[in-house]
Amino acid sequence: MGDLVTIADIRAAARRGASVVLTTPLLPSSTFSRMCGLDLWTKAENLQRTGSFKIRGAMNALSRLPGAARRAGVVAASAGNHAQGVALAASTLGIDCTVFMPRTAPLPKVSATRAYGATVALVGSDLGEAVDAARDHVAETGAHFVHPYDDPDIVAGQGTLGLELIDQMAEPGTVVIPIGGGGLAAGSAAAIKALSPGTRIVGVEAEAAATYVASREAGRPTAVEPRFTLADGIAVSRPSDLVFDHLEAHVDELVTVDDDEMTTAVALLLERAKFLVEPSGAAGLAAVLSGRVALRPGPTVVVLSGGNVDLLLIDRVIRKGLEASGRFGSFRVLVPDVPGQLAKITATVAEIGANVVQVEHRREGIGLPFGTTEISFAVETRDEEQLAEIVSAMEAIDVRGGR
Amino acid sequence: MGDLVTIADIRAAARRGASVVLTTPLLPSSTFSRMCGLDLWTKAENLQRTGSFKIRGAMNALSRLPGAARRAGVVAASAGNHAQGVALAASTLGIDCTVFMPRTAPLPKVSATRAYGATVALVGSDLGEAVDAARDHVAETGAHFVHPYDDPDIVAGQGTLGLELIDQMAEPGTVVIPIGGGGLAAGSAAAIKALSPGTRIVGVEAEAAATYVASREAGRPTAVEPRFTLADGIAVSRPSDLVFDHLEAHVDELVTVDDDEMTTAVALLLERAKFLVEPSGAAGLAAVLSGRVALRPGPTVVVLSGGNVDLLLIDRVIRKGLEASGRFGSFRVLVPDVPGQLAKITATVAEIGANVVQVEHRREGIGLPFGTTEISFAVETRDEEQLAEIVSAMEAIDVRGGR
Repeated sequence: MGDLVTIADIRAAARRGASVVLTTPLLPSSTFSRMCGLDLWTKAENLQRTGSFKIRGAMNALSRLPGAARRAGVVAASAGNHAQGVALAASTLGIDCTVFMPRTAPLPKVSATRAYGATVALVGSDLGEAVDAARDHVAETGAHFVHPYDDPDIVAGQGTLGLELIDQMAEPGTVVIPIGGGGLAAGSAAAIKALSPGTRIVGVEAEAAATYVASREAGRPTAVEPRFTLADGIAVSRPSDLVFDHLEAHVDELVTVDDDEMTTAVALLLERAKFLVEPSGAAGLAAVLSGRVALRPGPTVVVLSGGNVDLLLIDRVIRKGLEASGRFGSFRVLVPDVPGQLAKITATVAEIGANVVQVEHRREGIGLPFGTTEISFAVETRDEEQLAEIVSAMEAIDVRGGR
Repeated sequence: MGDLVTIADIRAAARRGASVVLTTPLLPSSTFSRMCGLDLWTKAENLQRTGSFKIRGAMNALSRLPGAARRAGVVAASAGNHAQGVALAASTLGIDCTVFMPRTAPLPKVSATRAYGATVALVGSDLGEAVDAARDHVAETGAHFVHPYDDPDIVAGQGTLGLELIDQMAEPGTVVIPIGGGGLAAGSAAAIKALSPGTRIVGVEAEAAATYVASREAGRPTAVEPRFTLADGIAVSRPSDLVFDHLEAHVDELVTVDDDEMTTAVALLLERAKFLVEPSGAAGLAAVLSGRVALRPGPTVVVLSGGNVDLLLIDRVIRKGLEASGRFGSFRVLVPDVPGQLAKITATVAEIGANVVQVEHRREGIGLPFGTTEISFAVETRDEEQLAEIVSAMEAIDVRGGR
């Protein structure tokens, strides 16, 4: 096992970042406390500058560069949060910064990274190609490559979140932290265990890319084949030895959450906490709400690690989240092509007490049997029970219902 | 002029609410500071319990009720924030609470009010009918009617936001506060002027329901005929004498904002600040960003007064907001019904560098000339300039373009 970052490293990182890094609020949530029978608090790191914790590590790593390296500039590859963190840290310290982003990166993230002063190069169709281009750039120019997590200065910088948290609440019972590359959990766990050894720390990975769960089971860093997940912010397939060692030393439990659990948490955070949190940033709350974290006495703090969601995707995330919790449903019903069918459906929905929020009526198209019409509609429902009532009513109306 | 609430009244209200009311964060925003050339801070009252400031006034008013009145219970009429504030205050104090809400109230608000322990009666098709039903209930049962703003105890309670703010920042240069019924601005201005007389206070009304602007011009409380506005949270047509007197005494400027300005602010708050704020709660930021508040030295604090937005409407608000700032556009283009037209349009959009986010292709329908097809699509754009490029390219492609 290599050297672990110490509380002294993390305190030094906090001093280096002090001019830029915000102290983010720690807030009690009576709604979530009631929902999961815990005294639940959220550490709202989604309100951090650049919209995620990444500025903490970037400020520390860039501050530590010697003068010659600073003059050569820094380079990063990222489709999102790391890009913005490095760009702001570099402009704060007066260092030239180039970020390689895949061509598919959403416009707002590209614009935000440029607004923080970086030169953005759009290359390739995925993050892997952007990383290759960044490595080429390093070979040509001698610029310093800023790794998103496999670097002790990054781990120590992200650890300032844990330090700050213990300053806000001396001895939390449990702290739940999302894990992607793992820098945030590694560093924060190091700080928390140094200052409050009795606090239990739970790390949460996306089920579709649970490298550190696999690594802990195998007893050594183990890559997994990642599947698709909405949590692009934490979908990392290759673990880092450095991060693995920190997690093994300081993190008590590792659990996983799936996409439905994360989107439900995103929708609930918006509706009840008034926070925009990205799916990966909501992984910690998702784990607690879905019962994947065992109850323990004492306050439970859930770290909301970032809030950078493309606004044009947010309605899909909301609908998926509401659907997963029985609060929204969309239906396609096939009915005979005679008058009164739409009225019959809407009357049935009204009787059950749900609200229709969208309707579409289609009389021709591929796959529609002759003499039938397809009515698709979306409803807002009170709970899963009411949604189930509508499902069975529609099965009775649909011409295929008897089959 | 009647009696105004004093700083002593407001301090007493703060003590009465202390067990329930959260101290909401005051956060600097470098993004908004840069956008408007000010040192801009947000007072995130959207993170308050029940999602708005209303719990502050409700806790004070209900705590002040004598024992007999408490036993008779309280009643309120509201479609939204006031309902939730009164419900939580009543359950905290062990008082029976009935809330009359119009049948059109969104399910989540009805559920939230019930979850805070109130009996909810759904009556009538608008708020006016709910108020009538509440008054009837008062006449029958002797319950106490809790007015949303025309009550010195409510004004003093809402004023605790101003008291808390001056505790967080001793002498802000300017504080910008949304005005609906006006209780929040009236009470907070009283607190701020008592503690920091040099602070300029700006109140912001929705243009469609600017009663206090009209009242100030007329020199006396003056009702206006309200028009439709998204800012249902602040669309009040009848001013209160009590609130009017407070605004005249303590609020330096009154300005208005329109729906486009508010929705742009809602979209920006989500995207950049990661906060969900309702349109009326974003009125203060809208006023600053649209240049309706003159620049002054010293920090400017914008109060984000509430965050209760129906999630199923949020995508519309986001699209409207992005559209108003040139970041999103939707088009309907009429083209000859021959192959290759869709490809031509998408190639043109790609060349300009925008992203298509939605496409629909319609070959028949009311109003479509024979031999033409309508293609409707939505694009995500970088800025107004890029949006304008697409507009002229599409005018050139559209068969009606030459007219």
